[in-house]
Amino acid sequence: MEPVLISGEWRQAEPSGSFRAVNPATTELLAREYPVSSWADCDAALAAAESASAQLATQPPAILADFLEDYARRLDDGAAAICEQAQLETALAVKPRLLEVEMPRTARQLRLAAAAARDGSWRLATIDTANNLRSGYGSLGPVVIFGPNNFPLAFNGISGGDFAAAIAAGNPVIAKANPSHPRTTQLLAVHARHAAASVGLPGGTVQLLYRTSKDDGTRLVQDDRVGAVAFTGSRAAGLVLKAAADKVGKPVYVELSSVNPVFLLPKAVRDGQANLADELTNSCLLGTGQFCTCPNLFVLFAGDDADTFLLAIKSRFESRPAGVLLSARVLETLHRSVESLRQAGAELMTGGRPIEQAGFSFQNTLLRVSGGQFLMSADELQTEAFGNATLAVVVNSIEQAVQVAEKIEGSLTGSIYSATDGSDDAIYNAIAPVLRRRVGRLLNDKMPTGVAVSPAMNHGGPFPATGHPGFTAVGIPASIRRFAMLECYDNVRPTRLPPWLQDASPNGTMWRSIDGAWIQGPVTRA
Amino acid sequence: MEPVLISGEWRQAEPSGSFRAVNPATTELLAREYPVSSWADCDAALAAAESASAQLATQPPAILADFLEDYARRLDDGAAAICEQAQLETALAVKPRLLEVEMPRTARQLRLAAAAARDGSWRLATIDTANNLRSGYGSLGPVVIFGPNNFPLAFNGISGGDFAAAIAAGNPVIAKANPSHPRTTQLLAVHARHAAASVGLPGGTVQLLYRTSKDDGTRLVQDDRVGAVAFTGSRAAGLVLKAAADKVGKPVYVELSSVNPVFLLPKAVRDGQANLADELTNSCLLGTGQFCTCPNLFVLFAGDDADTFLLAIKSRFESRPAGVLLSARVLETLHRSVESLRQAGAELMTGGRPIEQAGFSFQNTLLRVSGGQFLMSADELQTEAFGNATLAVVVNSIEQAVQVAEKIEGSLTGSIYSATDGSDDAIYNAIAPVLRRRVGRLLNDKMPTGVAVSPAMNHGGPFPATGHPGFTAVGIPASIRRFAMLECYDNVRPTRLPPWLQDASPNGTMWRSIDGAWIQGPVTRA
Repeated sequence: MEPVLISGEWRQAEPSGSFRAVNPATTELLAREYPVSSWADCDAALAAAESASAQLATQPPAILADFLEDYARRLDDGAAAICEQAQLETALAVKPRLLEVEMPRTARQLRLAAAAARDGSWRLATIDTANNLRSGYGSLGPVVIFGPNNFPLAFNGISGGDFAAAIAAGNPVIAKANPSHPRTTQLLAVHARHAAASVGLPGGTVQLLYRTSKDDGTRLVQDDRVGAVAFTGSRAAGLVLKAAADKVGKPVYVELSSVNPVFLLPKAVRDGQANLADELTNSCLLGTGQFCTCPNLFVLFAGDDADTFLLAIKSRFESRPAGVLLSARVLETLHRSVESLRQAGAELMTGGRPIEQAGFSFQNTLLRVSGGQFLMSADELQTEAFGNATLAVVVNSIEQAVQVAEKIEGSLTGSIYSATDGSDDAIYNAIAPVLRRRVGRLLNDKMPTGVAVSPAMNHGGPFPATGHPGFTAVGIPASIRRFAMLECYDNVRPTRLPPWLQDASPNGTMWRSIDGAWIQGPVTRA
Repeated sequence: MEPVLISGEWRQAEPSGSFRAVNPATTELLAREYPVSSWADCDAALAAAESASAQLATQPPAILADFLEDYARRLDDGAAAICEQAQLETALAVKPRLLEVEMPRTARQLRLAAAAARDGSWRLATIDTANNLRSGYGSLGPVVIFGPNNFPLAFNGISGGDFAAAIAAGNPVIAKANPSHPRTTQLLAVHARHAAASVGLPGGTVQLLYRTSKDDGTRLVQDDRVGAVAFTGSRAAGLVLKAAADKVGKPVYVELSSVNPVFLLPKAVRDGQANLADELTNSCLLGTGQFCTCPNLFVLFAGDDADTFLLAIKSRFESRPAGVLLSARVLETLHRSVESLRQAGAELMTGGRPIEQAGFSFQNTLLRVSGGQFLMSADELQTEAFGNATLAVVVNSIEQAVQVAEKIEGSLTGSIYSATDGSDDAIYNAIAPVLRRRVGRLLNDKMPTGVAVSPAMNHGGPFPATGHPGFTAVGIPASIRRFAMLECYDNVRPTRLPPWLQDASPNGTMWRSIDGAWIQGPVTRA
């Protein structure tokens, strides 16, 4: 049985069971056996994390930056082996996806987090010299991270955006591997452990469990020693963990399902046609439709242009080879979702069935429904079809388009394509304000897939896309503040302040709001 | 029956019952009768708020600033009448408390929120010109605010810090009056309505209900039309609302009970004695101990100095007249809490009984317990005694003091008094890091009562003090961001961006992070 990583050591788990991963391309079980950890493992990890957390609080943030950068270098060097393994467990292509896109993104996120930890501007340090009050964000304790199945590197609990953010804020991480890619996660953890040891971080800073019982998962997120929780994955599992954490007032960030509507306004469709059909098809089928931001739904205005456009999408869906899905469960859920959409009144234009072949695969699937039907069954028709299926909603008026927008559930993204000559502007102006409140990121003339790692990115949105519309999982520095508490120092003696709140600038680069002005320099008094 | 304020009009409620307030100083019912609103009232308020929310989104923030400033002026003018009424309903003194402290603070908060709304820096606007990504905080929809009993003006749902913050973020407010001071709340609402009308805000911007059934309260906070919820008050009621809101992913901010520990290190006690005893007594008995930040617990090191100090506190508690408590319920709960503390092993040094007199009153109460006993029953001994009662914890070693700190539940504040000559520093250094994680505001040589309205203030803290340690209820601009969602604009055409994200600075003063630098000017490209 594969070992877990606790307190800096690869040790045998105290398992309550075991599991093996599956190669989605062949549906065959992979060889290695992984433990389902019992509470004893969770407890040991929590104890080590708590101890590490106290030690980290006494260390300069530079050590965290050193760790993140060392880890990134090790990932650069080890990328080929990790990506090969990740392909085996996810059926995602080594090239370009894993090796040329996702791994470089992962390493870059770690480096950006390192730079942010070193710089400190993420803390939003605020100094009021008249009242001698100083505040800003600081660490809050061990963070438990549950990674998703669809990004084995860039969102992995031991290497992804949540990991980088939690560490940059000064917290130890207990990663819970996604059980669909345990070996990939283990390989990442090997590098993380070496990097942590090489810079002298406490052993409890980076830990890995593969799986727990549901009860132990709930108990884990509620434990007094945990500072915060992050989860990316299915709505059902996420809501259970969120409820558990909420009950004990533990910050919990869940990224759940999202329909990511794309509104294609009439003149944009007429002007765009072939190019637009390519763009939409690419976005819907990217990663076999298994991106968090793939459009599950697009809205067209009834008419000849729409019919022509839908046929263009249909022919593209039919001519593109269907990819391999991440797991048997993804295939089953996709199939069930498509059936639900049909039962709710959607008409199948193409696809709709699993493909009989070696791996988990489903036909590229396009459905359509009228705006009127959508409005009658808006909840059912927003059943997330995670995978290569998409629903076209064909509306017959601006009013109906606005009504559809009003029914869209909280999503990560919302896109509107409109003509460049201004002829769609009246419709845009009617839809955009409604859509704005329902999505974290509003796009113009652009598909939602492709989440730039930028300080201005928002990979978040209203429930049920996430649990709180004020936070983002991508985009440093904002993503770091999720894993922080607001620390205020009232009349605290100067030498007892953390360096980032003392009069002198800690490094000359950190932005601090001093008496109302954002500056990089020291506190000066009139 | 008194009318409710819905959609800009004072109208008769559709009540499911009625109630009257009580004069705490006489225990007599006051004359006016207030409705317990049925769901019909809630629904009408929600509809008006939703409509107002959409209208506000199209208006410049200056109108909100105008409203807040106009409201503040009306409060300046109407202060005497409001404070007289507030005294009748709360037994808090008109002078200095209500008229000279709380009302000026209330008006100042409104003016600071106005300035923040006008300026826009609270949005943390972030612009990435290379990716053409722009983001920042924007309004999220109607906010329901439940105000507490202990600050009838500065924390009132219709005039307090939450109100000012929610409005500044661009949201309508549905205020739920605290039923212990409905007439005060009504008088405030009269001014709010006039101010809203005078600047032309939609009628649904500021609304008032006095009371609902518990079920309707739950339904209200879960309603799709609600953007966020704020509650300040008892732990039991707050947790019910929090669970309801959490379940539907609604941002909810609860400020609950807090023990606000004060650690008095040995040499500080020796050096301080009389002055320190005065300071502690004042802080414990301020507002008859009904401040959110009154010390419920202080820690001393066993020895002659501690004994002398405790006797000094005891004599002060005995010589100070006991104030009038806010309500029969506060009196009952305080009595019960003191009994619970005694049952958990605390020894009564003075007080402990209700006072037979005209109003709701309880003897100034001092209890003590050993550190060892505290560690055995830490939960029970942190039963919040809201009112004029305090527990001394006498520890016998540094280790025990640290253990006590480790058991402190999440609090708004934690104070440490230490000698100025450095002789307490070793103890300080052992306790402070432990306390830091458990409190929102760490103080040196200062009592926790007195919450300065400052951008660097944190009136928040880990659960159960609040529901999330990253937010503060006091301190603009941070408090405003609680009632906001992160809005990201990806490739959105320039004229469609909100003014605060366009290239030009919206006003020349707003701070924006443009390509990594905080500046007040326009976007310029290299």
